[in-house]
Amino acid sequence: MEKDALLNDVQKRVERIQNALKSMNVDACILSTAVNVFYATGRVYNGYAYIPQEGKVVHFVKRPQIDLANAIYVNKPELIIEKLKESGEKLPQSIMAEVDALSYNSIIRLSSAMKIDPANTQDASYLLRRLRAEKTDYEVEQTKLCAKQHVAVYKTIPSLYKQGMTDIELQIEIEKQMRLHGSIGLFRSYGENMDIFMGSLLAGDNADVASPFDFALGGAGTSILMPLGACGKVLKEGQSVMVDMAGNYGSWMTDMTRVFSIGKLPSLAYDAHQLSIDIQNKLVSVCEIGFPCAEMYNIADKMVKKEGLEKYFMGHSLQAKFVGHGVGLEINELPVLTPRSKEVLTSNMVIAIEPKFVLPNIGAVGIENTFVVSKAGLSNLTECDEQIIEI
Amino acid sequence: MEKDALLNDVQKRVERIQNALKSMNVDACILSTAVNVFYATGRVYNGYAYIPQEGKVVHFVKRPQIDLANAIYVNKPELIIEKLKESGEKLPQSIMAEVDALSYNSIIRLSSAMKIDPANTQDASYLLRRLRAEKTDYEVEQTKLCAKQHVAVYKTIPSLYKQGMTDIELQIEIEKQMRLHGSIGLFRSYGENMDIFMGSLLAGDNADVASPFDFALGGAGTSILMPLGACGKVLKEGQSVMVDMAGNYGSWMTDMTRVFSIGKLPSLAYDAHQLSIDIQNKLVSVCEIGFPCAEMYNIADKMVKKEGLEKYFMGHSLQAKFVGHGVGLEINELPVLTPRSKEVLTSNMVIAIEPKFVLPNIGAVGIENTFVVSKAGLSNLTECDEQIIEI
Repeated sequence: MEKDALLNDVQKRVERIQNALKSMNVDACILSTAVNVFYATGRVYNGYAYIPQEGKVVHFVKRPQIDLANAIYVNKPELIIEKLKESGEKLPQSIMAEVDALSYNSIIRLSSAMKIDPANTQDASYLLRRLRAEKTDYEVEQTKLCAKQHVAVYKTIPSLYKQGMTDIELQIEIEKQMRLHGSIGLFRSYGENMDIFMGSLLAGDNADVASPFDFALGGAGTSILMPLGACGKVLKEGQSVMVDMAGNYGSWMTDMTRVFSIGKLPSLAYDAHQLSIDIQNKLVSVCEIGFPCAEMYNIADKMVKKEGLEKYFMGHSLQAKFVGHGVGLEINELPVLTPRSKEVLTSNMVIAIEPKFVLPNIGAVGIENTFVVSKAGLSNLTECDEQIIEI
Repeated sequence: MEKDALLNDVQKRVERIQNALKSMNVDACILSTAVNVFYATGRVYNGYAYIPQEGKVVHFVKRPQIDLANAIYVNKPELIIEKLKESGEKLPQSIMAEVDALSYNSIIRLSSAMKIDPANTQDASYLLRRLRAEKTDYEVEQTKLCAKQHVAVYKTIPSLYKQGMTDIELQIEIEKQMRLHGSIGLFRSYGENMDIFMGSLLAGDNADVASPFDFALGGAGTSILMPLGACGKVLKEGQSVMVDMAGNYGSWMTDMTRVFSIGKLPSLAYDAHQLSIDIQNKLVSVCEIGFPCAEMYNIADKMVKKEGLEKYFMGHSLQAKFVGHGVGLEINELPVLTPRSKEVLTSNMVIAIEPKFVLPNIGAVGIENTFVVSKAGLSNLTECDEQIIEI
């Protein structure tokens, strides 16, 4: 039953890709990254998912797969053309491949194997990011299942804290709860230099340590090799603890942030936090299908400036012009809610809205929830107490 | 002190790269992946470590870095040439870049920005893999620190098991110990489609489920999106539990496998396990600087065939022709101990030797340790009881 639903949905997703190929007049699309292979086949494998403009997907696998129909074993891409000929398939005159994700060497080799000039190999990375931004109904249902576990784990957090703990010790307890609730652990993001492990927990001024990577908030981390997130300091009275741990309890992810406090915080913290909630609620009240993503950022920006909190918004020592992003098989999908965005909300987009503030001597405050876009507007999938919770 | 040692070693590593550039007559090498940026700078950042044939490394960073000398902010690679001119550096006529790791789009853009034909951009990925295979003394010392924690965690394993546990529940307890002992969590490997989370725990027949990826042993995993490792079944009397969890307790890693048993195992398990230990000890007794890596595999292969256990060696439903690999900043470094290898052991290589067997109805048995190569031969960095431990 569950498997049938997945396979039916895979068929829909393949049709989307094939329709795009038709409209772009490209003969075939070849996918190799785990996320896109999964999107187009419902499985992951080391190899090439070959999607012709019409007809069935052919799975060119580099390791034997026992239970996959239409799979052909190839130990190198050079065999694809030969195997296509053998099975009577039309040979492609034009292809798309993941030029933004596969290595230069891999694309050169794959294009040559397909007898296409690499410079004429079109960008499947972007196409798939565009298609994946609008979820199918099945994908939305899967996202809801993930959201449920995400909320369940966050509810355990107050019980995990013990006085005298370091930030990383609290994070480790949360990681364990995540895994026990079915988190696959691995946290998938798009792009180079986006190393992150299971999410971020930022306490006190560590929230103001700028990331050397392209993350809105940073943190010093505990290792010179991964300077991000919790830093190993003991949690102290008067600090906020922002928990933004991965919602990877299935294939489709959710993104969710809640803030906890060690004792009471200065009133600025509660004011800024309430403003985050107000921004979220304002966006929920105005957003509908067709709403411009840039305008979502602008509304937030205006509300922040009205309260005079702009120097703390989306960072303090380093600020990001951004208030949210798409979520799905990867944590940073399209659309991106920035002032430069040209995109509008469309039906079944799944987006995280995360207005946050970094306050010196306190830490980070703010809220993040994952929403699905529909005719009814934005529906919150990660509903759960939004106030700062004292632990 | 610690920082001085790191910086001195970075200087040595840069000299290695510069010597290679001189011998290859290439003007500069540009590194962008976290692992290689760290190797050449002692830091990680989003940007480009520019290493000229002579002179100082220039850090072209995409995000502000406060405490890094010789850092220049660039928000796009197109600015590198301009900034080099401004600072009076010689402009390169030839470059190396990470063509086997950076995306096709990234290399096209970087090469064009440097005014070099991408087809003439030489392979820094392979060069760095070659250089990194031979560790500096500092790197070996760092590896030893990691090994100490790796051993300490494995010693806790018998106390973590409770009757009725699933394989994934035991793995989660080990993961927690790893993190509490300083594991950075993130597990770095080289190459595309090498997704893995914190290592592998394989119990009973799950060890015989072939991986769709390029790992020697597989396991069904708990998610369709990451079909690898523990599968969620309850651990049962008569099963072996092979623990091959990441040794990432610092920047330089170790690799180590131990086998536990739920109750007693059939005698075949102990025989095959002892053969693994014998193979390891035989290799330790014969290996020295200059020893061919292919011969290491051949010795193992011969010993296995003599005992008639070849159908279980390095997998059963799917077998890998391989008995070990280099370890360092990534888990799968050079050399690779395969029959086709053309490499020989050289001083300060760090290698994992892992002869393993997969036995139907029992599970996987065998041993893995990390060794450093020196004039004295192979020294085991991960010493710890090697017998199957009943839990």
